Amino acid sequence: MVKFHILRANLSTGEFREEVIGEDLVKKYLGGRGLGTYLALKEIPRGVDPYSPSNKLYFFSGPLSGIVTLASSRLTVVGKSPLTGSLTHSNMGGNFNVMLRKSGFDGIVVEGASDEPVYILVKDGEPQIRPAKHIWGKWTDHSTKLLLQDAGFEPDERKAGVVTIGPAGENLVRIAGIRGSDYERFAGRGGLGAVMGSKKLKGIVVWGTRDLNRELVDRQKFAEVHSKYVKMLSEADVSKALHKYGTNVLMNIVNSIGALPTRNFETGVFEEAEKVSEEYMQKAGYFKEVHGCMMCPIACTQMHKVESGPFKFMGKVKHEYESTWALAPNLGIGDPGAMNKLTKLANELGMDTISLGNVLATAVELAKKGKLPIPTDWNDPATMIDLAIKTAYRDGVGDDLAEGDYRLALKYGEPEAFVGARGQGFPAYDPRALKGFALAYMTANRGGDHLEAYTPTWEILGAPKKVDPLDDSPAGIEEQARLVKWNQDLFAVVDSTIICKFDQLDAKGGIFENALADLYNAAFGWDWTPQDVLTVGERIFNAERLFHVKEGKWVKDELTPRLRKPLPSGPAAGHSAAKMFDEGIKVYYRLRGWEDGKPLPDTLKRLGLEEFLYLL
Amino acid sequence: MVKFHILRANLSTGEFREEVIGEDLVKKYLGGRGLGTYLALKEIPRGVDPYSPSNKLYFFSGPLSGIVTLASSRLTVVGKSPLTGSLTHSNMGGNFNVMLRKSGFDGIVVEGASDEPVYILVKDGEPQIRPAKHIWGKWTDHSTKLLLQDAGFEPDERKAGVVTIGPAGENLVRIAGIRGSDYERFAGRGGLGAVMGSKKLKGIVVWGTRDLNRELVDRQKFAEVHSKYVKMLSEADVSKALHKYGTNVLMNIVNSIGALPTRNFETGVFEEAEKVSEEYMQKAGYFKEVHGCMMCPIACTQMHKVESGPFKFMGKVKHEYESTWALAPNLGIGDPGAMNKLTKLANELGMDTISLGNVLATAVELAKKGKLPIPTDWNDPATMIDLAIKTAYRDGVGDDLAEGDYRLALKYGEPEAFVGARGQGFPAYDPRALKGFALAYMTANRGGDHLEAYTPTWEILGAPKKVDPLDDSPAGIEEQARLVKWNQDLFAVVDSTIICKFDQLDAKGGIFENALADLYNAAFGWDWTPQDVLTVGERIFNAERLFHVKEGKWVKDELTPRLRKPLPSGPAAGHSAAKMFDEGIKVYYRLRGWEDGKPLPDTLKRLGLEEFLYLL
Repeated sequence: MVKFHILRANLSTGEFREEVIGEDLVKKYLGGRGLGTYLALKEIPRGVDPYSPSNKLYFFSGPLSGIVTLASSRLTVVGKSPLTGSLTHSNMGGNFNVMLRKSGFDGIVVEGASDEPVYILVKDGEPQIRPAKHIWGKWTDHSTKLLLQDAGFEPDERKAGVVTIGPAGENLVRIAGIRGSDYERFAGRGGLGAVMGSKKLKGIVVWGTRDLNRELVDRQKFAEVHSKYVKMLSEADVSKALHKYGTNVLMNIVNSIGALPTRNFETGVFEEAEKVSEEYMQKAGYFKEVHGCMMCPIACTQMHKVESGPFKFMGKVKHEYESTWALAPNLGIGDPGAMNKLTKLANELGMDTISLGNVLATAVELAKKGKLPIPTDWNDPATMIDLAIKTAYRDGVGDDLAEGDYRLALKYGEPEAFVGARGQGFPAYDPRALKGFALAYMTANRGGDHLEAYTPTWEILGAPKKVDPLDDSPAGIEEQARLVKWNQDLFAVVDSTIICKFDQLDAKGGIFENALADLYNAAFGWDWTPQDVLTVGERIFNAERLFHVKEGKWVKDELTPRLRKPLPSGPAAGHSAAKMFDEGIKVYYRLRGWEDGKPLPDTLKRLGLEEFLYLL
Repeated sequence: MVKFHILRANLSTGEFREEVIGEDLVKKYLGGRGLGTYLALKEIPRGVDPYSPSNKLYFFSGPLSGIVTLASSRLTVVGKSPLTGSLTHSNMGGNFNVMLRKSGFDGIVVEGASDEPVYILVKDGEPQIRPAKHIWGKWTDHSTKLLLQDAGFEPDERKAGVVTIGPAGENLVRIAGIRGSDYERFAGRGGLGAVMGSKKLKGIVVWGTRDLNRELVDRQKFAEVHSKYVKMLSEADVSKALHKYGTNVLMNIVNSIGALPTRNFETGVFEEAEKVSEEYMQKAGYFKEVHGCMMCPIACTQMHKVESGPFKFMGKVKHEYESTWALAPNLGIGDPGAMNKLTKLANELGMDTISLGNVLATAVELAKKGKLPIPTDWNDPATMIDLAIKTAYRDGVGDDLAEGDYRLALKYGEPEAFVGARGQGFPAYDPRALKGFALAYMTANRGGDHLEAYTPTWEILGAPKKVDPLDDSPAGIEEQARLVKWNQDLFAVVDSTIICKFDQLDAKGGIFENALADLYNAAFGWDWTPQDVLTVGERIFNAERLFHVKEGKWVKDELTPRLRKPLPSGPAAGHSAAKMFDEGIKVYYRLRGWEDGKPLPDTLKRLGLEEFLYLL
């Protein structure tokens, strides 16, 4: 019988409470994003300020976390977002998640708020709330070491699991992320680092020796099923490319199809993309070393260094395609040193690199329009570095930037300078050239998101089948809507299981619903069909949408005005996202059983969400 | 009858107390440094931690502050230094001092410590302690504006007087300074900004309409005497040079005689000095505008800008010869952009530029010797910028740098990498090439100081007479010891009056003891001789030394080992400071009536310091 063991830590009272979720509920929502959403929907009071002690944070693993060697050391954090003002979920790799489960708990719910800085320590089932006044104010590198030391470990990032926040979280910067140990992992999006800050929670340290395989019904049989998929994943071409170049293998590819958002989505091709591609940076001496998360056969983590020049910094930096895009093409910057330096600052100060890029790009656009009194322009790394630091500390104009791109654009009277959805800026793909994203971005529950459905899987990689990214014929629209819904449902399960989304990229056969059914059945003796897997995902996705319905916020899906204008240049010049969205959303709602962004009662009944019918 | 009106603000109790110092005591100690020292000596308990609520801060004007147009808007702050662990005094221009006096008080004594961030507001005699939680954390530019706004003024730096601290002071960084309004004024040395931080005092705002001339015995007569000296000062060549180039007119001059400390006093000539000279930087487009403090006929304040390149920053920066030296030649940096950027960061984060240069230079030396694990070298602006920020926030290795150069060098086992005296690093002149400083630096009560006696006055400018800076013959030594003592006594009066030291640079006739006697007599109907002026200075200087005697700290004057080694290159190659110090200190003690750095009982009696005989 699989169960989900929760530790509830109330920082207002200093009390802990343990809670066991039974198999019935686990089968409905799994762990991570699914179970987190279910509990958040029931527990977080409607209309509450994200910085109120009544907001909660769900640090959740999933039933297969740390059990399958399929990049399964991933943690999902769920809570009400200070950036978007409604539900968000954010996900990180590293070692925290395995350590969390080994510590004795499958999830930690942080409730209330402390008056003084604290951190939570869990060692082999024994939780403590410990003072963190001496760690408050430290950047994330230093904080990780001090948390480990204070908890009695060597200051080596791999000895125990650590999550922490930097100054940005402490200063309630709405784009603050949560950093995880084992090299600069981040639950970046949605500003949940600032929720930790509002609770005066500097970090969580977990360690233990619990046997994670104890719930497997047949270890031998599970090993057989499991190893087949590990082999498949290890041998996939896309895994090998990720190991060699990391996610930034995408830079040249995305640019080549005209889908690389440049200068706040002004166009889709960046003249200096090559210089910030991983291939170039490795040749140019920026590569330092490669790492992998625990339980991962891919090992895609690229660490960079900058050892000379004006953007030199101490130590190394983890970087990704998204970070590189956000802090280089999106700002008109083509200098790899500047990009790496900006990434390092974001990671050290504890900010989501994507949202930092969004807010800086919005600021430049506002400045160029004479709205924001900053002397800057595209390709101005020095000012971007200054602004990044000032944002983390809410100093000067940084106090406005710390409110995020959506609020910044509104405050300075240029709402269209915010390019995103549901209050969150877009990531590194232009939906005018990868049209699946016209639906995926706008319908994503957490807003401006590429990870609730990742359309390049079929639009570029052809998994499970190749789809033309520019085809917005009626048939193309129907296909995209169907694939987006399928992928959203699948990824809701992936984020609740929890495995990495790099398991679903291979055209020859990724860890899709079939494999997931196989794995769950082998592990726990269930009898799931692949469709059952997708139904769980659909339930989770609908529950998320119900949070918006309950809040009365972001229910309707809308296309950002900028994407209605055709791309002015590049291979996709002339294309807009208007048709794909305007027509596609109708198909999408039909497939979902929704109306105006809202689930219909029958849909909730079909998905076993009757208890939430009262919200409609 | 001249009196000194003190406002005592106790931050522990929230209470104010007013106190009037009578003319007898004013005639003995004047205001500023003199009266501050006298009260500190009596009031600050022996052995107290500088960060204890029992430490006090004396923000004092002087009897002629804001009355004479001789650069008289200067404030002295006195307290126990967290950098040196004994008495220090620090001095700034701007508009604060005039506004302070006009607010109704000649000085504010801050006692105790608040639990929550506060600031003190005094408007026309009405003091308040106000919450400053919303301003805590802000850098000094932003903080100045917010303090003004909160106090009900326009956010224009000249509307009221403001002193504030930045993150460095809040984070108890031992080199934190206190910034004053009217463009980046700083009471930099000695770390008193961190004492404000320890008291949770973010700032002081003062404004009022008091008539500062009300105590003059004869306004007409005073105006006549006064205007003669204003004319003299306005017409002095040195005043004109200062107006045109600011203090950094010294860069090329000091380098040309081989006295420009380079790479932590490795040598006395810097190959790239020209590039950071004011003459060059003005031609190269770094000059923005010139300002003057209130009540000053010189107006020497040079504001710089950096509008492009990797060291570009927003706004403008006040800079000085000392800052330029500390953050360029002293770090082997010849890039004016990098220097200005480092200065801007120091000013914004609230750190003494000289001490920041000292601690960075010490860090580079330690790194080069393999003691400090930082990959850096001379001329590494990017790392210096990173370290400056990390020092202000005590992040990572910055936590060690925040302890100051003296403690840093000791911690890493290289005491000689600290180049200073009494725990404070040296400023911008090498005493091996300007040998008067061999005595002036080492005997300065606040440690490592060029402003208790400024020997270039006679060694370079020939005021009151020209002395060869390299002459350490017996006659030269005798002359230097005599001049240093004279200048120390004079400057103790200057710092207590308070006027600027740019009043004493002109060979044709500065505001020396004669002029000061004249001015005081005209103002208050006294009958001082020039010798009386010097005796007051001598009393103050001895009282300061008594603070060290009471603490049992830094009593003995000692020559830093590095200065015993001859300069390896430049016009003064082969010269050391050993002879000047070893022989000179004997003459100096004889002239002072001291033994082993300590006043003799007869000396105290002669100076009217009998009440402190018990300390000997």
